[in-house]
Amino acid sequence: MYRIDCLQFANWSESIFREMREGDVDAVHVTIVYHETFRETVAEMSKWNRMFDRYSDLILHGRTAADIDRARETNRTAIFFGFQNPSPIEADIDLVEILHTLGARFMQLSYNNQSLLATGCYEADDPGITRMGKEVIREMNRVGLVVDMSHSADRSTIEAAELSERPIAITHANPHVWEPALRNKRDAVIRAVTENGGMMGFSLYPHHLKDKTNCTADSFCQMVADAAEAYGVEHFGIGSDLCQDQPDSIVEWMRVGRWTKGIDFGEGSASAPGFPPQPSWFQTNKDFGNIEEGLGAVGFDQTEVGLLMGDNWYRFFDMNFGPVGTTSR
Amino acid sequence: MYRIDCLQFANWSESIFREMREGDVDAVHVTIVYHETFRETVAEMSKWNRMFDRYSDLILHGRTAADIDRARETNRTAIFFGFQNPSPIEADIDLVEILHTLGARFMQLSYNNQSLLATGCYEADDPGITRMGKEVIREMNRVGLVVDMSHSADRSTIEAAELSERPIAITHANPHVWEPALRNKRDAVIRAVTENGGMMGFSLYPHHLKDKTNCTADSFCQMVADAAEAYGVEHFGIGSDLCQDQPDSIVEWMRVGRWTKGIDFGEGSASAPGFPPQPSWFQTNKDFGNIEEGLGAVGFDQTEVGLLMGDNWYRFFDMNFGPVGTTSR
Repeated sequence: MYRIDCLQFANWSESIFREMREGDVDAVHVTIVYHETFRETVAEMSKWNRMFDRYSDLILHGRTAADIDRARETNRTAIFFGFQNPSPIEADIDLVEILHTLGARFMQLSYNNQSLLATGCYEADDPGITRMGKEVIREMNRVGLVVDMSHSADRSTIEAAELSERPIAITHANPHVWEPALRNKRDAVIRAVTENGGMMGFSLYPHHLKDKTNCTADSFCQMVADAAEAYGVEHFGIGSDLCQDQPDSIVEWMRVGRWTKGIDFGEGSASAPGFPPQPSWFQTNKDFGNIEEGLGAVGFDQTEVGLLMGDNWYRFFDMNFGPVGTTSR
Repeated sequence: MYRIDCLQFANWSESIFREMREGDVDAVHVTIVYHETFRETVAEMSKWNRMFDRYSDLILHGRTAADIDRARETNRTAIFFGFQNPSPIEADIDLVEILHTLGARFMQLSYNNQSLLATGCYEADDPGITRMGKEVIREMNRVGLVVDMSHSADRSTIEAAELSERPIAITHANPHVWEPALRNKRDAVIRAVTENGGMMGFSLYPHHLKDKTNCTADSFCQMVADAAEAYGVEHFGIGSDLCQDQPDSIVEWMRVGRWTKGIDFGEGSASAPGFPPQPSWFQTNKDFGNIEEGLGAVGFDQTEVGLLMGDNWYRFFDMNFGPVGTTSR
């Protein structure tokens, strides 16, 4: 049974990498940029190269599913790169292949706002995938860079699932029916993504949880059970959205980037602009056991718990991180 | 009477600058970039700095309307910078002020495709001005960088005119009613722009002309007369879109940029992908006299001919190239 978290954005440190080992986390998809340019993205990759060197006993750079097995065999965690916005490709489709070569494996087509490719979930109107977006999806399909629509608007997400010749992902969100947050996904969206063979990772970010910080593990796991029943257990995993040890200045960068001279509070508010506190049962990478236990308690059998905790993501990574028809094994 | 052309994109040379002098052209708004990044835009400005130095007897860098008078007094042509796409600001609102300081005076919010700010006229659906677009319009208004919607879609253009607290421009296009080209503007669009105090420059690019290359000066001038009657003569000028001495590789860059790995023919076609030939009566900067003569022939008086040939643009430049309430004189 693999244990894979398909989205984290921590203030990375030796202490967090040690917690990943304590929590038996085999692989993490980490957000390396929100609004950064190509050059700034490369600088973030350079920082990771230094961390892979410095903490080579704890982590390694994951490029394929086979790297997850290599990590397990050597008691390490495989780190996969992703972007929450297409800003790293700027306006240049050729940067898709360049960034994939450098290790990018997930790219969101939009982050809250309209991008060159797709609409974000905070825009008033969503015209769907743009002319450039169609071209970029084709190119991402070709090289094996996964389309992630976590922060995109509904029509854009549904069109991306239809246009993409390979499965797409919503790496971190929950069903809107459980908690009607703007970022959570409505039935038609989850259906389009899963019918195209895609995956959704359940988020532990308090703004996406029923009762936010006070959400119970039981409520969360019951939500997982309902989704698995509605769409099929094979389409789900964890994408915790854990933003550990980050100062509040970081959530401002996530929300504001460089698109406004004012302040946008996103899912927060003027009175609570910072990161919300995590639920007591999911504070760090050591806490995945609480979810695993909770999934058993709501009735999943051992195999299903394995699928949800990482086996589904393992299969997805294996099929989608290289050219069509290739696997890493 | 001023003679001002509010859009050209030539393959600049001493020969063209000499033709501007022969044609008594006082000022030209030149496109310096289509899809270029910030850094590439700065490199284009550097090329112009070298040309201002080398051809200092023929041209000067225009920043305000007063520079047009300085150019006239010294028998030169004032060159004003503009962008056909917001690509120079990348995703960074603070670059609006930086680029204005460097001389930018017009910026299109989109070029054919969806941008971060607005929709282009080739997209299937137009959701209007984006969240970032609203912020950027406010910033452009503040510093005096004119919103140009020549290649934008209808709803986006109408919303830009409504949102902008200062007049906006369509620097180069013609009425759709005269020639139903995709790039020409429908009544509601021209009405929104002119009612906000804005300006439109009539284009001499063959794809925007009735009968294209074979368009007659009389037909063109009659179109001007009809537009002046419908919306008011004070809202119009020339924006010839003259693309002199350019190789066909340039029109491909204009259309394709870096947004697709394929080819897009834009207003051309697979069988005619290059620049179309200009009408016989408007080939170079020496030919503005033919338009001036034609405007008289369709019934405009001397004052009106002056407004159309440059006096309207002079007034617009004077009011809109600096902070609100300032003029250059």
